[in-house]
Amino acid sequence: MTNQLVAVMGRGLVPTDAALLTADDLGFTRGDGCFDAARVVVGDGPTRVDHLDRHLARFARSAAALELPAPNEAAWRELIEIALASWDQPGEAVLKLVRTRGPEHSPGGITELLTITAATDATQVRRGVRAITLNRGFGANAFTAAPWLLGGVKTLSYAVNVAAKREVARRGVEEAIFVSADGFLLEAPTAGLVVAADDQLWTTPVAGTGILDSVTVEVIMDAAAADGVGTHEALFRPEDLPGTDGVWIASAVRGVLPVLELDSIALPQNRQLTAHLARVAGF
Amino acid sequence: MTNQLVAVMGRGLVPTDAALLTADDLGFTRGDGCFDAARVVVGDGPTRVDHLDRHLARFARSAAALELPAPNEAAWRELIEIALASWDQPGEAVLKLVRTRGPEHSPGGITELLTITAATDATQVRRGVRAITLNRGFGANAFTAAPWLLGGVKTLSYAVNVAAKREVARRGVEEAIFVSADGFLLEAPTAGLVVAADDQLWTTPVAGTGILDSVTVEVIMDAAAADGVGTHEALFRPEDLPGTDGVWIASAVRGVLPVLELDSIALPQNRQLTAHLARVAGF
Repeated sequence: MTNQLVAVMGRGLVPTDAALLTADDLGFTRGDGCFDAARVVVGDGPTRVDHLDRHLARFARSAAALELPAPNEAAWRELIEIALASWDQPGEAVLKLVRTRGPEHSPGGITELLTITAATDATQVRRGVRAITLNRGFGANAFTAAPWLLGGVKTLSYAVNVAAKREVARRGVEEAIFVSADGFLLEAPTAGLVVAADDQLWTTPVAGTGILDSVTVEVIMDAAAADGVGTHEALFRPEDLPGTDGVWIASAVRGVLPVLELDSIALPQNRQLTAHLARVAGF
Repeated sequence: MTNQLVAVMGRGLVPTDAALLTADDLGFTRGDGCFDAARVVVGDGPTRVDHLDRHLARFARSAAALELPAPNEAAWRELIEIALASWDQPGEAVLKLVRTRGPEHSPGGITELLTITAATDATQVRRGVRAITLNRGFGANAFTAAPWLLGGVKTLSYAVNVAAKREVARRGVEEAIFVSADGFLLEAPTAGLVVAADDQLWTTPVAGTGILDSVTVEVIMDAAAADGVGTHEALFRPEDLPGTDGVWIASAVRGVLPVLELDSIALPQNRQLTAHLARVAGF
């Protein structure tokens, strides 16, 4: 069994393989709930969770979009502290926070739990990934004025993201970048997009596109702005990328991954900028 | 607590409110699994499940699309028999079959369970529903050659369908019909679409649109074809509907619901045809 730790709101730590959820939990039967995932690092200093404030803020936004009650931030921070105190595996891990609408027919109210699991070794992908484009089916403006499509909400309904990762594996590469039906680059199945061009940094606009507001992209953009570098949102096409200064996939857990090639076309590489972006993102 | 029964593959009946699923079940954390739902009727004769063969066949197709192992049909039929033998609440109920990829980190293989729950009273909606259109964001041909979008797969990732139902309630009506980004009628969040026009029956094409192949629509179309009525697939626009002979939303559980109005525009009503369609569908 992979190293794993599970804690439940109001109960604290429970055995890793404990059965916790009823058959009618709406997070299970309908994917009707939200989650967030942050990186845990156990090293020489105190155990840390990267950018926890931003992850908790996004978790609360996801809950609001699903019309779930607001999470009790103090209670979540306490549960996270309890879990971290028991997690001592050196290296990187994933803290996942989950909330669902709870059992549909049984009593119990909403479901709230967290897990910590050892992270997959990201050494190789941090050196670079080969990516393919996958059509996401939506136009780049499909989510404007359609809140029921849950654009930008980190719901538990991730079957398409998982299927995209199976397609990636089938094609023998490491990553996918979703493109809109009208041909614009959106995001990776579980990560955001950063482009360097004209001595500035660019990412996909959240409004209208339905993409998730990536915490890692936000951190990178905030650091760039603080350094006086221009930061912008823009929609790029795959054919624009060879003419840029570099393209990265930014994940809270895996880090800042330079895209070596997209659909077998080589993209510009800038090792110094890759190292800089990784550093400002905490990697 | 609503009347509910739960049975688990390999274990049989378990207490209704038993905790069954681990925190890392991929059906829970990723909506990475499939389900199917059929109507159970407890009446004067033996308890029956409507169109079980078709539901089991679709359940197997969903599993294949998710690259899950094929369900063991004999074992499912046996589990269903065990559950039905213990379900005696008179009237209508919902049999739901669920399979997921199982726990991500704990041992255990795939998760397989079923529930039977008392159905919500559908008397009123069987007389007619007011519906609104909701943009589904996808073009009507978005799913062609994009299997990772899981078009037509009844996955556990239903958060958008649930959000659409919340939007329906907010607008004070009973149903929604999703429309494609290019303006074509697709399906309801948990039901198919039937249109009568030119003395024939029409429904949304499955290929390309990503809609689910509705068992109830299939049954209606097969009965019509056996009666010598023409049956076709076609994409309609909302503005086409007032000029047809009637529009219905077809659900395995709720039945065949005549659409009284769409976006506040009255649609043609045909009580005799409504009664006929309901009868052939088993309602």
